[in-house]
Amino acid sequence: MAGGEVDDHVEEVKNQQVLARDYISAIPEESDMYVNNTATIKLKVPAGDEFNGSVLLKNLYLSCDPYMRGVKHSDTGTTAQDRIVFFAPDSPIVGYGVSKVVDSRHPELKAGDLVWGITKWEQYSLITNTQSFFKINHTDVPLSYYTGLLGMPGMTAYAGFYQVCNPKKGEYVYVSSAFGAVGQIVGQLAKLMGCYVVGSAGSKEKVDILKNKFGFDEAFNYKEEVDLNAALKRYFPQGIDIYFENVGGKMLDAVLLNMRLHGRIAVCGMISQYNYEKHEGVTNLMHLIYKRIRMEGFSVNDFYHLYPNFLDVMLPFIREAKIAYVEDITQGLENGPAALVRLFSGRNAGKAVVAVAHHAQ
Amino acid sequence: MAGGEVDDHVEEVKNQQVLARDYISAIPEESDMYVNNTATIKLKVPAGDEFNGSVLLKNLYLSCDPYMRGVKHSDTGTTAQDRIVFFAPDSPIVGYGVSKVVDSRHPELKAGDLVWGITKWEQYSLITNTQSFFKINHTDVPLSYYTGLLGMPGMTAYAGFYQVCNPKKGEYVYVSSAFGAVGQIVGQLAKLMGCYVVGSAGSKEKVDILKNKFGFDEAFNYKEEVDLNAALKRYFPQGIDIYFENVGGKMLDAVLLNMRLHGRIAVCGMISQYNYEKHEGVTNLMHLIYKRIRMEGFSVNDFYHLYPNFLDVMLPFIREAKIAYVEDITQGLENGPAALVRLFSGRNAGKAVVAVAHHAQ
Repeated sequence: MAGGEVDDHVEEVKNQQVLARDYISAIPEESDMYVNNTATIKLKVPAGDEFNGSVLLKNLYLSCDPYMRGVKHSDTGTTAQDRIVFFAPDSPIVGYGVSKVVDSRHPELKAGDLVWGITKWEQYSLITNTQSFFKINHTDVPLSYYTGLLGMPGMTAYAGFYQVCNPKKGEYVYVSSAFGAVGQIVGQLAKLMGCYVVGSAGSKEKVDILKNKFGFDEAFNYKEEVDLNAALKRYFPQGIDIYFENVGGKMLDAVLLNMRLHGRIAVCGMISQYNYEKHEGVTNLMHLIYKRIRMEGFSVNDFYHLYPNFLDVMLPFIREAKIAYVEDITQGLENGPAALVRLFSGRNAGKAVVAVAHHAQ
Repeated sequence: MAGGEVDDHVEEVKNQQVLARDYISAIPEESDMYVNNTATIKLKVPAGDEFNGSVLLKNLYLSCDPYMRGVKHSDTGTTAQDRIVFFAPDSPIVGYGVSKVVDSRHPELKAGDLVWGITKWEQYSLITNTQSFFKINHTDVPLSYYTGLLGMPGMTAYAGFYQVCNPKKGEYVYVSSAFGAVGQIVGQLAKLMGCYVVGSAGSKEKVDILKNKFGFDEAFNYKEEVDLNAALKRYFPQGIDIYFENVGGKMLDAVLLNMRLHGRIAVCGMISQYNYEKHEGVTNLMHLIYKRIRMEGFSVNDFYHLYPNFLDVMLPFIREAKIAYVEDITQGLENGPAALVRLFSGRNAGKAVVAVAHHAQ
């Protein structure tokens, strides 16, 4: 048998896929994706050295995340993990997911294990680069949580808030894009630490959930504010100690005017800037000096060594219901494109997840 | 004798002054200042509780510094020390200087002591707020150095480079406004640490001095570069680890494109922005995330507890001639306005100092 081939006796099954038509350079639209119902896959990692360490996964949940968009060449990150191409011609969409190992040539993973990491939008995936995968050891919480609260977004919130923001009890914390998967967790971690927390989001419904379910002290709909500076002055008469930045542009400019001495800005995302050819200019950076502000971009990829510590903090919070979490689960891989597009329109009602198959199946 | 009055028997002397005509809102011009040759002063701290802790100083050297300009109301700092008003109607210009104590009601200062701190542009000053003053204990170096290398600019360079930039041997360091009092010291401290250092300045003469006297690896005249991004790529083919920011605006935008992973930007000043009513927008802040950059504004005022450590580092460097320093000393208080204006035009040939009187006089 030649290297790379799979034994003919291995069962070949149908493998529904969601593929990209082409590279994209902006927010994905449904027409950028198509469903293929005719592909098949053999449920075994092929022989051959090139598949040493590979796994064959059954994908259970796929995550819709706001960075699953096209990027301009100039906007690429500088490490391999930052250069994920989510959309490539006639290739399955790439994204985070929760999966079950069907077959493994990986020394630390065996059939039946549950994992989360970067997989593909299809029922089954042969994964050769398993660098991003974490084995799931705690299954007393919903598995879908590993796409959010216990996965990359949760870890991003944890690292960004505890490691980058250097928070102290009683501080004034502002979270933009607070209804997002990361923002809602940051806000709750800040409340659990004893901070005053205000979030902004893009609809009345989201604002209500921030206040009533996630326990933010205040929240506001940024779309209804003609003057962001005035809005922030209203919610933070004493100023902002910590800004968890997801937005950029005009919002950042308004925040800079309202920061307190020795404030910290953790730059997690700048969603307002992703689709501008020419980004909005930020004009108030002088305030970095006036208030001695530390503004720091970070990537969750630098913090995964803390994942065990993160679980030690987060699992008790979940089990004791100290953290609220809302998922917006779309059933069926074929409905994935609509779910992803809905996320970008801001119409998701919680962490956007696509359920491909259930664990027991 | 009533409180606040000075004994009639105390000698009254002439006290030449440089006064401001009014508040200013931009760079000072010579016409914003005038010399008064008719004022007199009694060389004794008055009696009365309000003068407890006050000193009567003979000013020896006055410092011309780039922050001695008008500021817009919205651009004020948030601590008392940041709100120095350098120009107020018919008041002596306020600025750093080196002075000799003539009379003292301060418990730790006595007549004959030498000090540096925030004084006034006049021959003699009665100083009630002595908070900013440091006693000068080392006089084997020129006293004028305490307006620069051993004073606030030196301390700013030391704190900004060692405390904010977190430098490591072999890193790539870029200093803008590198001929400035702070920039030239930062570059030399970086060289002494074993970094690769490039500076930019605004004339061929300054560029030559940066390379030939201050030992920068490279230097360039930013006014001759049509494309700052291309210039930086030429000098930093491997990117920039540390940017000591004195300029802001377009320069910062170009630097952001050239920063390396985990780079640090110490924001000391943004001189390009001081005179814009509407500041130039910075559009490449997304790179804070792509490269996980820490960008931190700082004020030397937060670091003066380290002044003894600073002297421990800097005095040996000076005595062993490991640090070069160039002063542009203008003789005579009456020539102070011209010296200050020359600084803002970029025509100073070194640290701009006004010599008011010599120590021995």
